[in-house]
Amino acid sequence: MNNILIIGAGRSSTFLIDYLIAFAEQNNFTITLADADLELAKAKCRNSKIATAIKFNVDDENLRQSLISNATIVVSMLPAHMHVSVANDCVSLKRHLVTASYVSAGMKALDEEAKKNGVILLNEVGLDPGIDHMSAMKIIHDLNKKGAYISSFKSFCGGLVAPESNDNPWGYKFSWNPRNVILAGQSTAQYLENGNLKLVPYNRIFATASSIEVEGYGCFDAYPNRDSLNYIVPYELDNIQTMLRGTLRQHNYCKAWNVFVQLGICDDSYKIDASKLTYRNLIDSFLPESDLSTEEKLRMYCEADQTCIEMLHFTGILSNEPINQSNVSPAEILQSLLEERWKLLPQDKDMIVMVHQFVYSINGEEKTLQSSLVVKGVDSVYTSMAKTVGLPAAIAVKNILTGKIKLTGVQIPILPAVYEPILEELSKLGIVFQEQFLND
Amino acid sequence: MNNILIIGAGRSSTFLIDYLIAFAEQNNFTITLADADLELAKAKCRNSKIATAIKFNVDDENLRQSLISNATIVVSMLPAHMHVSVANDCVSLKRHLVTASYVSAGMKALDEEAKKNGVILLNEVGLDPGIDHMSAMKIIHDLNKKGAYISSFKSFCGGLVAPESNDNPWGYKFSWNPRNVILAGQSTAQYLENGNLKLVPYNRIFATASSIEVEGYGCFDAYPNRDSLNYIVPYELDNIQTMLRGTLRQHNYCKAWNVFVQLGICDDSYKIDASKLTYRNLIDSFLPESDLSTEEKLRMYCEADQTCIEMLHFTGILSNEPINQSNVSPAEILQSLLEERWKLLPQDKDMIVMVHQFVYSINGEEKTLQSSLVVKGVDSVYTSMAKTVGLPAAIAVKNILTGKIKLTGVQIPILPAVYEPILEELSKLGIVFQEQFLND
Repeated sequence: MNNILIIGAGRSSTFLIDYLIAFAEQNNFTITLADADLELAKAKCRNSKIATAIKFNVDDENLRQSLISNATIVVSMLPAHMHVSVANDCVSLKRHLVTASYVSAGMKALDEEAKKNGVILLNEVGLDPGIDHMSAMKIIHDLNKKGAYISSFKSFCGGLVAPESNDNPWGYKFSWNPRNVILAGQSTAQYLENGNLKLVPYNRIFATASSIEVEGYGCFDAYPNRDSLNYIVPYELDNIQTMLRGTLRQHNYCKAWNVFVQLGICDDSYKIDASKLTYRNLIDSFLPESDLSTEEKLRMYCEADQTCIEMLHFTGILSNEPINQSNVSPAEILQSLLEERWKLLPQDKDMIVMVHQFVYSINGEEKTLQSSLVVKGVDSVYTSMAKTVGLPAAIAVKNILTGKIKLTGVQIPILPAVYEPILEELSKLGIVFQEQFLND
Repeated sequence: MNNILIIGAGRSSTFLIDYLIAFAEQNNFTITLADADLELAKAKCRNSKIATAIKFNVDDENLRQSLISNATIVVSMLPAHMHVSVANDCVSLKRHLVTASYVSAGMKALDEEAKKNGVILLNEVGLDPGIDHMSAMKIIHDLNKKGAYISSFKSFCGGLVAPESNDNPWGYKFSWNPRNVILAGQSTAQYLENGNLKLVPYNRIFATASSIEVEGYGCFDAYPNRDSLNYIVPYELDNIQTMLRGTLRQHNYCKAWNVFVQLGICDDSYKIDASKLTYRNLIDSFLPESDLSTEEKLRMYCEADQTCIEMLHFTGILSNEPINQSNVSPAEILQSLLEERWKLLPQDKDMIVMVHQFVYSINGEEKTLQSSLVVKGVDSVYTSMAKTVGLPAAIAVKNILTGKIKLTGVQIPILPAVYEPILEELSKLGIVFQEQFLND
């Protein structure tokens, strides 16, 4: 019996499920689609005869192990912290696993046993992480073959809204987990610049965003993201001088979001009673008492210019509407407001933008290469986010099943044998990078 | 058999141990002094015949329970998070417990069972929390009796160095846990001002410090500390308009410490490899790359004026000395440097300053009352910190044993029956508040 177990039918899984159902129908496989929300899983099975929806709870050990032992391969689209129990079962039951999430310490610890048991735990094979690794490694390996020295690598990605669906001054709507957007940047960014370690704490991450231009799409804000140093060795860039991974937002987003950071409103670590406060009262609570208006205080204490003030007004956070929530964190209040204002409407198209910038020298000549990807969604279900996160994972599942990927142990897609066939198939599905040389 | 179990022989316990040994010798008690460091415990017993030192590990359940069951009363000077297992045993073995720490959620949960078993778990009976509660409650109860309406209460405390022992521009040396000083302010401060909720995040706590003058000692910096709203109900101040608890530092300390906050160097949440960095390199890593000097960048990006730069130079954090540490957090690097520079030398005197400010109206007249306490240490062992933390707890132990305190359950010293005899005895031991009316 050949069965593919897909865990997680949420918004990032749409394309993955469709792809794997089509593959299964053509290749005599069955699909089990497991999700906490049975109705959602049923709907995503789209009446396929070979697909079965099942209600799933990752903490139900018996169910988990029975589903995994009945599968040939498992692909988990759960949040990253839920993967480890699945991965543990996969190793002991000798089943391959594919995820689109960062390798956690718990995942990493399974490497040796996975190798011993002959299974692969292939992680970071979504968009970011995923397509970023694969597309960067292809260029790095090509340049290495040509004898180039790569002195600088910067890589950025953002899940945005397409210009034709943009109707707000932030140029942003939620195409994935809103909570992660609210809490973004709260761990100090680490990167390398001109050979020097750089550390950027939360209170300066959004204030120091740089600008990245993508031909045909204008300028984006780019802020550094988490620990970029981690990828120097896997990317084979040991002698690099500048190494930075970051996040893209529409122009002006970062300076306006920085007002929230300076206020302190993205804090999820304590609860307040906001049942008697308006949104404007809440903003005032973060500002010193004075006779100035809230807007004047935002200008004075939080680096807010007129553009920022207008962007804040759009969110409703300066309104006199009551909050009507008690025992709630400031971050939760902001999130529930933005979930209304930044909602992807049914016909809205989201947009993925990924940019790699390489500076390298070859035969004494220095060049700056920019490789960029723009993918737009179809609507609020068939998003570019779901497409770019789900298709690489789905193709990886197929390639493991068909023997194209023969590795074992904990892996990320940085070897040509893994990334080449995936990139090739992605390009046929419209996921294609454009390259240009910049004058530096 | 009458035995007092003292857990923790560290720097805050010196006066407490001496006081309880003297009490025990006069009243036919014995003392058991338990500490992870047996030699330290032995030294603090000072050859008293009725005192026994014992090596202690709070996680050794058998030892813990045997020591507690052999005691009439327990006083724990452990760090706050270690109290709960001790408190659990005290309740089940029906032994009274005294601590100088904040009531944790785990402690609070024991209230009902403690009452059922007829024991008191008396917490927050040190300096801050402790003397602050007792001295404030005495004034509040007095004002209430006179029919006054208290509109504002601000209370500040700092463990500083006495002017005669001060030889550094920060006016600060460590008289308690250095780690807590490095991480100070990292939870958003919450307080009430003119009837409005005020929330001050870490990135603005030190920047918005106010100034407090204490007659004869000049001006101190005061910054708000954690959640002041918690004490409105216990202090019987339900209709108050302004309620603020905070921390005192010498003048200029806060603006210089704010440079560290803006840099991001007090972050203990990630590790770096600093084995090839100098202290100056580390500071540069937090600042943008540019041709400016480190000092110029500190001025530009971290609100550092010339006074701040000089204070930073004193710490050694701008030096070209190598750090020589790998896998270390920025906060740990700063701490190890400051532990050298801010060390209390053997003959140094530390100094406790506590200030309460009340605004109240009585018969239509508004008054501002400042009540302040200054206590200086004898040397680096007999510190004012050890005196003011340890003596209230020691007196509380005596008063429970002699029946002066008859309460049961989880308590803090806010009732006259508890605080009056303690304050009275403290005043005989030189711990006396001075009152003055300010012109407002």
